[in-house]
Amino acid sequence: MASNHLPPPSGLESHRFPVEPWRLVETEYHSDDLGHTETLFGVGNGYLGMRANPEEGRDAHSHGTFINGFHETWEIQHAENAFGFAKVGQTIVNVPDAKLIKLYVDDEPLLLADADLEHYERSIDFRTGYLTRDLLWRTPGGKRIHVRSTRMVSMAERHLAVMTFEVTLLDEAAPVVISSQLLNRQDGEDEYHVVGAALGEGNPEHDPRKASEFEQRVLRPTTREDSTDDEGSGDVILGYTCVNSGMTLACGYHHHVDTASHFAATTELGDDLAKTVFEIAGEPNVPITITKYVAYHTSTGVPCEELADRCTRTLRRAVRTGVDELRNEQVGTLDRFWASADIEITGDDTAQQAMRWNLFQLAQASIKTQEQGIAAKGVTAGGYDGHYFWDTEVYVVPFLAYTDPIAARKLLRFRWHMLDAARRRARELNQEGGLFPWRTINGEEASAYYAAGTAQYHINADVVFALARYLDATGDVEFLADEGAEILTETARLWNDLGFYATNNSGSFHIHRVTGPDEYTTVVNDNLYTNVMARFNLRYAARTVRFLAEWNPEAFASLQRRTGLRLGELDDWDAAADAMFIPYDERSEIHPQDTAFLDLEPWDWKGTGLDKYPLLLHFHPLVIYRHQVLKQADVVLAMYLRSPYFTAEQKRRNFDFYDPITTGDSSLSACVQGIVAAQVGRDELAHDYFERALYLDICDVHGNTSDGVHIANCGGVWAAIVHGFAGMIEDGLALSFAPRLPTQWSGVRFRVHRHGSTMQVELTPDGAQLSHVEGIGVPVKDGEVEIVVEAGVTHHVARAPSE
Amino acid sequence: MASNHLPPPSGLESHRFPVEPWRLVETEYHSDDLGHTETLFGVGNGYLGMRANPEEGRDAHSHGTFINGFHETWEIQHAENAFGFAKVGQTIVNVPDAKLIKLYVDDEPLLLADADLEHYERSIDFRTGYLTRDLLWRTPGGKRIHVRSTRMVSMAERHLAVMTFEVTLLDEAAPVVISSQLLNRQDGEDEYHVVGAALGEGNPEHDPRKASEFEQRVLRPTTREDSTDDEGSGDVILGYTCVNSGMTLACGYHHHVDTASHFAATTELGDDLAKTVFEIAGEPNVPITITKYVAYHTSTGVPCEELADRCTRTLRRAVRTGVDELRNEQVGTLDRFWASADIEITGDDTAQQAMRWNLFQLAQASIKTQEQGIAAKGVTAGGYDGHYFWDTEVYVVPFLAYTDPIAARKLLRFRWHMLDAARRRARELNQEGGLFPWRTINGEEASAYYAAGTAQYHINADVVFALARYLDATGDVEFLADEGAEILTETARLWNDLGFYATNNSGSFHIHRVTGPDEYTTVVNDNLYTNVMARFNLRYAARTVRFLAEWNPEAFASLQRRTGLRLGELDDWDAAADAMFIPYDERSEIHPQDTAFLDLEPWDWKGTGLDKYPLLLHFHPLVIYRHQVLKQADVVLAMYLRSPYFTAEQKRRNFDFYDPITTGDSSLSACVQGIVAAQVGRDELAHDYFERALYLDICDVHGNTSDGVHIANCGGVWAAIVHGFAGMIEDGLALSFAPRLPTQWSGVRFRVHRHGSTMQVELTPDGAQLSHVEGIGVPVKDGEVEIVVEAGVTHHVARAPSE
Repeated sequence: MASNHLPPPSGLESHRFPVEPWRLVETEYHSDDLGHTETLFGVGNGYLGMRANPEEGRDAHSHGTFINGFHETWEIQHAENAFGFAKVGQTIVNVPDAKLIKLYVDDEPLLLADADLEHYERSIDFRTGYLTRDLLWRTPGGKRIHVRSTRMVSMAERHLAVMTFEVTLLDEAAPVVISSQLLNRQDGEDEYHVVGAALGEGNPEHDPRKASEFEQRVLRPTTREDSTDDEGSGDVILGYTCVNSGMTLACGYHHHVDTASHFAATTELGDDLAKTVFEIAGEPNVPITITKYVAYHTSTGVPCEELADRCTRTLRRAVRTGVDELRNEQVGTLDRFWASADIEITGDDTAQQAMRWNLFQLAQASIKTQEQGIAAKGVTAGGYDGHYFWDTEVYVVPFLAYTDPIAARKLLRFRWHMLDAARRRARELNQEGGLFPWRTINGEEASAYYAAGTAQYHINADVVFALARYLDATGDVEFLADEGAEILTETARLWNDLGFYATNNSGSFHIHRVTGPDEYTTVVNDNLYTNVMARFNLRYAARTVRFLAEWNPEAFASLQRRTGLRLGELDDWDAAADAMFIPYDERSEIHPQDTAFLDLEPWDWKGTGLDKYPLLLHFHPLVIYRHQVLKQADVVLAMYLRSPYFTAEQKRRNFDFYDPITTGDSSLSACVQGIVAAQVGRDELAHDYFERALYLDICDVHGNTSDGVHIANCGGVWAAIVHGFAGMIEDGLALSFAPRLPTQWSGVRFRVHRHGSTMQVELTPDGAQLSHVEGIGVPVKDGEVEIVVEAGVTHHVARAPSE
Repeated sequence: MASNHLPPPSGLESHRFPVEPWRLVETEYHSDDLGHTETLFGVGNGYLGMRANPEEGRDAHSHGTFINGFHETWEIQHAENAFGFAKVGQTIVNVPDAKLIKLYVDDEPLLLADADLEHYERSIDFRTGYLTRDLLWRTPGGKRIHVRSTRMVSMAERHLAVMTFEVTLLDEAAPVVISSQLLNRQDGEDEYHVVGAALGEGNPEHDPRKASEFEQRVLRPTTREDSTDDEGSGDVILGYTCVNSGMTLACGYHHHVDTASHFAATTELGDDLAKTVFEIAGEPNVPITITKYVAYHTSTGVPCEELADRCTRTLRRAVRTGVDELRNEQVGTLDRFWASADIEITGDDTAQQAMRWNLFQLAQASIKTQEQGIAAKGVTAGGYDGHYFWDTEVYVVPFLAYTDPIAARKLLRFRWHMLDAARRRARELNQEGGLFPWRTINGEEASAYYAAGTAQYHINADVVFALARYLDATGDVEFLADEGAEILTETARLWNDLGFYATNNSGSFHIHRVTGPDEYTTVVNDNLYTNVMARFNLRYAARTVRFLAEWNPEAFASLQRRTGLRLGELDDWDAAADAMFIPYDERSEIHPQDTAFLDLEPWDWKGTGLDKYPLLLHFHPLVIYRHQVLKQADVVLAMYLRSPYFTAEQKRRNFDFYDPITTGDSSLSACVQGIVAAQVGRDELAHDYFERALYLDICDVHGNTSDGVHIANCGGVWAAIVHGFAGMIEDGLALSFAPRLPTQWSGVRFRVHRHGSTMQVELTPDGAQLSHVEGIGVPVKDGEVEIVVEAGVTHHVARAPSE
């Protein structure tokens, strides 16, 4: 039985993690799931991410601080090489750790694993973005100490993190030592040692989802600066250069101490460690508060010295602003986020909390990416080497397009920046146009296993899907003119050249030897998902570029200069789209995943114990590829993304065929199954799948949340509400809805931004109430009725039928 | 235009390499094709092989001495690992070099690249197996020196090589120094330095046909022995252990000096070098002859000390026997070989010489393998890492079965020894029975690229093909009872379990996601070659094991004990064979290579320059796989191996379809195209292909003969005569012939051994004359006529029709 077919999880153990609407709270320290909780309580802003390691360091699954796109490169060693195989490995670097603030009382260290804790609470607050820990520690000498700390990564200043550490002796005086550090662990004992191979303690050697590990020094120390005085005030900066990629990094801290007790500080700097040690004559009930401002700056070319200057400026500005005002900025940023993005669920507090946790992860992944992508794990850990996949385009951009269009635009500009590399890669693969890399940080293909990598040509259409979704949601024709049209041109050219017209006089256009999103069936002919999405890409490119030529001849002329585009190419694209072969089996009335899929052998479900999932860790790829078994359902995904192109009956039949043979071994599976289950009126199943997706990280369903948050799934959770239960569909002109509130809930409320206007959608048991919030209004189609939900207008959509 | 469609080569440049019937002779020293000539003039016996490096060392493409199966292991590092990927890399080791005999006259070294040579001749004699070099050297001081040397690897004593080095001063006296060495180059500057990746100077980084290279010491010195006296007489032995594989090696030499001049010798031993230096007061016209006896012993477990003892015994026995008698033994062994295996071609002396060179390579590859396999390059170099593939079974065993059945038997026993590893590998791939590794030395799968490796399940049927061919040719039922039946059982089980019955009620049996011999189309469904061969494997196993059960119940009981075989399984095998799906396209009346082959896009032949071949070095695998383009023709090979199962019309139509789309990028291609071209009566084309195969190494058609002789092709050259031009077909009961002598020749003569009898076949322009040579006779079918070619019987077969 595949994990997909087990009962869904139903939330965290509520004694340890009490249910609250706006916080995730932990009331007991456990050392047996550190990897999981380090991820759940992590803080980040899309640029900088810090895992929820305790201030004391020591016991951890992994001490992690990550900066989006900051990576080392290495030569991929193929055991058996071939022409065009990916050459440049790219791995996100675990940067120096500024989280460390070690406490000693009477020279006894605070160590959570051993400490006698009379009180423990750790929480992450979704409205403030603060990770807070509150301890009452009884030292080995019997003294009671109150330790309260906070940590935030600024959502207003992307290079900044701020920590506070407050110690109060409750019983009697004692010498207190606080050692605040900045530690480069790259070569440390508890760190990475093997290049390339995906190894992880206690995990199978062949788990491709793990991060690569380095066997030698990655960060070469280049710069050290220290302007601290004997109270520890001043800036400490360390600078590093990545040995191969040449990327540069500077990071530093600045402390502010607030206490009535007497104290003195000393600072030491080495290649891999800077520390400022505060020695305090602690007195009872006199709080000692240390504020640690931390800055990180990175670059692909700027010298470390200049980055060090930038750190200093960031730190000094932060110190001037002060913790209170920084907190206000943080709360203000998140207020705006929640005003746009919140989803309120009534009737299920556990789900409400989990919903907000997922949305909060999307904020932490997207809010300050600037023009980097969003990695599979955001900035929460190094899983999948910190690579960007299609996840962002298909699972995250749709969320951003309707909640934070500026963030969506930045992600699309990031892809546009990659076009030159995509054009080079296409040439290398003997094709015209551009081919985006399946996985990458720097724009170069980094997938060392082409069958489940390079062969996923669908990435091109996924990018165009995101572009279209953004343009539909915003009407940003300027972006179309400048960046969008170039993306459309090069992707459409790739498809037109990759496919071919069958020689059997059928006139149909085929795309062969590609892999769809389902990595349990690879290198096939006429993958349905790929062909449906390529058809869309070709048609959309032709139509949109024609529009550009008429609307803005100057922009079109510029496009022609940049790409050499001829108008005749647009006709070729339309012709290929019109002739596109879409596999359909008349007998079973379903869309086969590819031409040969229905000929494969059924999987032996009964003979496959639960310990054999995910299959990829227990069966040779050839065994998996030989059978009708899916990691995630290609056809179902195509039905979600290109919903209007399938009849309701086709959707039902396809869903019923593919759902039972889908393992859900992919974390991208549950949300999509849920969306389509909802759209075809399988209410109970839709709710089951929603819970699988909702609790996927919170309950560690895939057993690897320690490797980071599955960001795409968080976007999928949003989509499961908006496109699933609300049944929202975008046709480029208007939105439509097919509401089906789960019977478990009494209501759901969310907002949608479209073309600068905002509308509220409230799901009720009998349908949905659409109401105006802001702007000139949002056009909506309800069956034959076309209305604009503008000021003063409220519209009720009837509940869609269920099975 | 593919190289396959260029005019065939027509032999070596005859000024430098004069045509002789029994020798390959070189009359000028060239330094620009050392790699090629080192291979062409190499000596070996199937166990030990020495490349034709000059005695002086120095200028060389690669200094090579190889021992069949002597290998180092290493952990395969997959850039992206997955379950069941091959783990243990295996690479044949270049063992210490005993070929070195350096000459100094007046302290001036003889170095071929610079030497003033008044005469130069190097030859390899196919009847003696001796490599001989004859020089007249004018030293920098103007003295003329005659230097004659010989080198042979004994075909009677597999551990032994013998060299002679004879120096005669023709003009005046001079001090002569001869330094005879044994050098371990493993860590030398001119040797291998990178593990895994297939790098070679001037070659693309991704050429998978090269040997892997080591980046650290492979041979750890363990033993040194020296019993030489002051005349250099006595034994010098060095012993080594492979660091990872633990294989052990001892090698040594013993010198005998014969001269009337005064001389003295000193010997020095180090970890990686032993040398004996002879200082001789050379006098005019007084020959100085040094005989160097060399021994190599290897083992998977025996300590080096014991191997050293074995070397000593080999050396002492050789010294006692003496060079003359050793030469007699060598000639005697080769006389027997030629009596069985020679093919006489009249009317084309160039072809005759090349024919004998190819046959001689087969002798050098097979004569002393003992129970090792035959690597792709025999013992001629380290190409393809010294691995055993299916080449032996399909291309070499058919030759041996009819010329040297004992050698064929040993090769089959070698596969039988691998059965335990094959059973383990099958389990790892989720299958019952046994699965032979695609490439291996030690029995473990070593193919790091499964699409063109592990997916070639056909290896199982190839082994059974060789077994059947051996049993048909010998009637060796004892081998069937002991080893053969176990191979049949485990291979048939694999097929029965790997395939499945279609769920569409057709009742047909399918085998999916496998790769046939053509590596330009991989991981396909119902590969015709695989299905045809699997059908044969299943049927042959069922029939033969049933025969065993009746004929020898005791052997059958033993088989059951070893394999747990149930009689019911035989019915399953028959049922699967009967239901086997054989792709056939009614419209075009051809057999598609696989289910989807005819749907692929045609290759752009016109747009592919000659510099783009072989395609595998210039196109990403996905690009190649996407098109109708072949490395070698699967279907054509199936028609050769299972000839009676295709009608003449099918053969013609299939051949005409596949031949134009076959690049011949595989060296296994030309001979098979030639055989089938002959069988379908395309006489001119058959002769063209024959020349391609005949001169493949001699003219370095694939540009990589420096990496070793393509041994399989040598077997294919034999088959092109016997199965092609003579049209010999074995049906298990009798032989039949369809003779078509090429018009370029006046006759061809060869012999065939079958069930202990020998028959001569003489092709003439009007057919073939079959005549008895030895034994009770050979059964032959000629149309409806069944005869036995026994003593006194001669039978004429009419020429088969041509197109």
